[in-house]
Amino acid sequence: MTTETLTAPTELASAWLARFGDALARGDAAAATALFDDDCYWRDLVAFTWNIRTQEGKAAVRAMLDARLADVKPSNFAIEGQATEAGGVTEAWFRFETGVARGRGHLRLKGDKAWTLLTTMTELKGHEEKKGERRIKGAEHGVHPGRKTWSELREEEARTLGYTEQPYVVIVGGGQGGIMLGARLRRLGVPAIIIEKNPRPGDSWRKRYKSLCLHDPVWYDHLPYLPFPDDWPVFAPKDKIGDWLEMYAKVMELNYWGSTVCKKATWNESRQEWDIQVEREGRPVTLRPKELVFALGVSGYPNVPKIPGAESFLGDQHHSSQHPGPENYQGKKCVVLGSNNSSHDICAALWEHGADVTMVQRSSTHIAPSDSLMELALGGLYSEQAVKNGIDHHTADLIFASVPYKIMHTFHVPVYEEMKKRDADLYARLEKAGFMLDFGDDGSGLFMKYLRRGSGYYIDVGACELVANGSIKLKSRVNIERINPKSVTLSDGTELPADLIVYATGYGSMNGWLADLISPEVADKVGKVWGLGSSTTKDPGPWEGELRNMWKPTQVPHLWFHGGNLHQSRHYSQFLSLQLKARHAGIATPVYELAAAHHKR
Amino acid sequence: MTTETLTAPTELASAWLARFGDALARGDAAAATALFDDDCYWRDLVAFTWNIRTQEGKAAVRAMLDARLADVKPSNFAIEGQATEAGGVTEAWFRFETGVARGRGHLRLKGDKAWTLLTTMTELKGHEEKKGERRIKGAEHGVHPGRKTWSELREEEARTLGYTEQPYVVIVGGGQGGIMLGARLRRLGVPAIIIEKNPRPGDSWRKRYKSLCLHDPVWYDHLPYLPFPDDWPVFAPKDKIGDWLEMYAKVMELNYWGSTVCKKATWNESRQEWDIQVEREGRPVTLRPKELVFALGVSGYPNVPKIPGAESFLGDQHHSSQHPGPENYQGKKCVVLGSNNSSHDICAALWEHGADVTMVQRSSTHIAPSDSLMELALGGLYSEQAVKNGIDHHTADLIFASVPYKIMHTFHVPVYEEMKKRDADLYARLEKAGFMLDFGDDGSGLFMKYLRRGSGYYIDVGACELVANGSIKLKSRVNIERINPKSVTLSDGTELPADLIVYATGYGSMNGWLADLISPEVADKVGKVWGLGSSTTKDPGPWEGELRNMWKPTQVPHLWFHGGNLHQSRHYSQFLSLQLKARHAGIATPVYELAAAHHKR
Repeated sequence: MTTETLTAPTELASAWLARFGDALARGDAAAATALFDDDCYWRDLVAFTWNIRTQEGKAAVRAMLDARLADVKPSNFAIEGQATEAGGVTEAWFRFETGVARGRGHLRLKGDKAWTLLTTMTELKGHEEKKGERRIKGAEHGVHPGRKTWSELREEEARTLGYTEQPYVVIVGGGQGGIMLGARLRRLGVPAIIIEKNPRPGDSWRKRYKSLCLHDPVWYDHLPYLPFPDDWPVFAPKDKIGDWLEMYAKVMELNYWGSTVCKKATWNESRQEWDIQVEREGRPVTLRPKELVFALGVSGYPNVPKIPGAESFLGDQHHSSQHPGPENYQGKKCVVLGSNNSSHDICAALWEHGADVTMVQRSSTHIAPSDSLMELALGGLYSEQAVKNGIDHHTADLIFASVPYKIMHTFHVPVYEEMKKRDADLYARLEKAGFMLDFGDDGSGLFMKYLRRGSGYYIDVGACELVANGSIKLKSRVNIERINPKSVTLSDGTELPADLIVYATGYGSMNGWLADLISPEVADKVGKVWGLGSSTTKDPGPWEGELRNMWKPTQVPHLWFHGGNLHQSRHYSQFLSLQLKARHAGIATPVYELAAAHHKR
Repeated sequence: MTTETLTAPTELASAWLARFGDALARGDAAAATALFDDDCYWRDLVAFTWNIRTQEGKAAVRAMLDARLADVKPSNFAIEGQATEAGGVTEAWFRFETGVARGRGHLRLKGDKAWTLLTTMTELKGHEEKKGERRIKGAEHGVHPGRKTWSELREEEARTLGYTEQPYVVIVGGGQGGIMLGARLRRLGVPAIIIEKNPRPGDSWRKRYKSLCLHDPVWYDHLPYLPFPDDWPVFAPKDKIGDWLEMYAKVMELNYWGSTVCKKATWNESRQEWDIQVEREGRPVTLRPKELVFALGVSGYPNVPKIPGAESFLGDQHHSSQHPGPENYQGKKCVVLGSNNSSHDICAALWEHGADVTMVQRSSTHIAPSDSLMELALGGLYSEQAVKNGIDHHTADLIFASVPYKIMHTFHVPVYEEMKKRDADLYARLEKAGFMLDFGDDGSGLFMKYLRRGSGYYIDVGACELVANGSIKLKSRVNIERINPKSVTLSDGTELPADLIVYATGYGSMNGWLADLISPEVADKVGKVWGLGSSTTKDPGPWEGELRNMWKPTQVPHLWFHGGNLHQSRHYSQFLSLQLKARHAGIATPVYELAAAHHKR
């Protein structure tokens, strides 16, 4: 027999939730705000704000409640399981409702005051996913002359949607992000079409260089609704992921238009819908959805530096995203400009295939050895051990989301302090080889760099050894100054013979696409996508509190961005799909404090 | 905080397991046997017997232990969770080991003596599946000139296996059974090829009549390793299942040869392997595996009765398995011989499409209304409620397996007593329409009929109403005596005009295939497949205790049968795959009490 007794932390957290719920129920924003510590953060994913927004400090909490409380009508706050306490911080999970939705939250108390509060929307009342005991029967028992079967209905949908029927949402980009959002919208009954330039789901992985495996581990990478089987490799090879995405799109019954290119999108003000010109397998089709989502990754157009003499080069030159792989470069002289992930991967593969490779490092790079990263940074949330501890990826995602961006770096700094010690030997040998290292402006390492600027690091899966031992030649603290027919001249005057130049020089902001696909004005109105405004390198302020323009309303109505790594695409597709569903269902969605655009690109 | 106290049933079961384990450890078969009730059953799935066998009564238990104890070396019996008690029966789960394997078991005590004991093998030591913390890394970190990628290795395997490399196992039949066994063998590292006459996995479902949905509910139907998503319909439409099987075969990386026909199989005694002549996409290939599995369903060749005058018939006539669907029979006179599942499904679909349909019922049929069957017969183990009660399909399969066949009917009789009451109105109206009903010779209903004879029932999803109200015309207590060019003459002298005759007359035993594919002698040596020897209609004795020849060694070495519904294919593929893996790994597998063949077909 199991006897459950409330622990002291549970009593503390329950009492806080009860007081909080009471204050909210009687519309007393002042009393609710008084339950927070002066040092406090309330991160809301859609439930209170119809936005993704962190209220930082009591004044911001109060302002949000003043604006939203009457409309949100929060109720039924109830603790889930037992709270825990460590280092003076009490942590608890809870459920709650609003007028239109159900939600789940996470609370951290310092003493009896809230330090961090996370509120997330999980489902809209009356629009729940048809899962578990709500699942459909499937068979229509009884005898129904003229009935249509599942496959007839699927064929009819494939034939009519986008032609005689219009989707509510068009998702531009059928990589992992578009597919996951598509799956969520399908479950919510929101008609959607995903358009993708490659023929098949998974092709964007398949087309990458052949030795590529995921750099994130399997526990971090699950797609919604259908976790990988328990024998899935820790780091899945790209083609295996490609096949999985293809299978997933099929069994999730997505309307996936492969070999389809978006040519132009225009908002039709009078009809309140988009006109999207696409070319499907070479034939023009106009789609007229109410909402348009760009899901083209986390990067915009490739950055290719303009270097004098480039047009005179007699060998191959291309951006890293266009690199065909190492097969044709055996014995060739290869120069790779840049020193982040793609540069390292491409240099190592070229070296494996017998090329003569030089990496040109212009600025410092953060190196995170894969094993250390898995163990120190991800192990607590995304690992076999975490699963054994009861932290599956659903729980891990919420824990991850519960840490406000404003203080996230303080959670990360100790991880990288440990990494510096643990991998001191590698770091010393890299520096001896001339490699410029950093750990981020404030020592907070890889994930903060990813959030702030989406660049500036390499997860080491082997290439560092080649740099350290000189197999990959390194020229650092220099740039390519001039390109000659058969060589490059570096800024220190060195001339390097070259048959191949790879520009591993990164990407622009995602709104770059908008300039071409919609208009430069719309691109500038939306502004820069991604980044936090941390005032660190390549992430100019002001402070935003959340990733710019991601998964939330933008300055251009009916225009959304979706993307990120597998973890982010999985987790945030939930909140983007609920925002889209609410609009589809005609539920009022007043957006609290729509973020301003501070930077054009 | 959670405090666990051992309950009285747990103490009782733990004490029994301790005494049992001690007796086995010291090789004391007499003491171990003394722990059983006089009325006792020990069902073993591979762990003790390298067979699937139920020991019925203490003498049989004692005999098995005398024969097997020294070799099996059982140890480490340990209760799992808490035991429960109801109606004087204590139930408990436990784990144990043998010299070569780990296992899981289930125990029912009456008082302090064992009434039923189930022992199952879960994994072979040193040959565990690479799952969870044993999963492979996937990426080969580091730099390896000449390394092959996952997709290159997959392509190489596809190119060589069956040609320059031989599989250890060939599975004839790529329906659900072959696919599930293939997935288990893949995980165990046993090279296998599945051959299937249809082009794609899932085609055997796709080719069935278009309104077909599974008659079993989703909780009963999961495949190993990759459960259906939680929004999967209760009764999945056939094409959806077809797509799922196709994707499953792909992501499980099966070597699936579609459009491949098995022409002939011969055991080569000198080389100790099979010579299997197959035709793959029209080209002959010889496969030489060590083990051969037939996974062609639960049925053998179609039974088509020889009826005088059949050759003179001017309309269409075909067995139910060849029925193309109702589309071409609008306004036609259709006679369907037989009154079980296929007959009802075909009659209803013909009627839906405006045909004039007569069902000819020769003998009584068991009718189980789908809703009642789900609720009364399956609900406790396979339902949303069961899942909420902690009984997922893994647990349900073992509970199901824990009931010895000898007494299984006593568990089922009360279910059908209840069904008789609940659906009394339908049954009365059917009888009024002349329909001959039964509930099995001993009132034990559908599943026992399925196990004993694989026929004799209809799960009502609507056709019964059409029979009761006369929409489907019924001629019962008759047979077709003669076929005329445009009609049939029944044994009561009635003549029915006919444009179509469907023989919904069932199938022969699975060993029928062997007569053609191997030889009549081998078919007779293997004997009848399926059935329990219950001495009920169409299941002649002697009593076997287990399904004949299914998932266990047969009288012909290296020849196996796999099949059954989705539940059976899932559950028993585990035990068949472990038997094959043990042989592949060179582990001794002395089979205890190989079942004799009592019936040729």
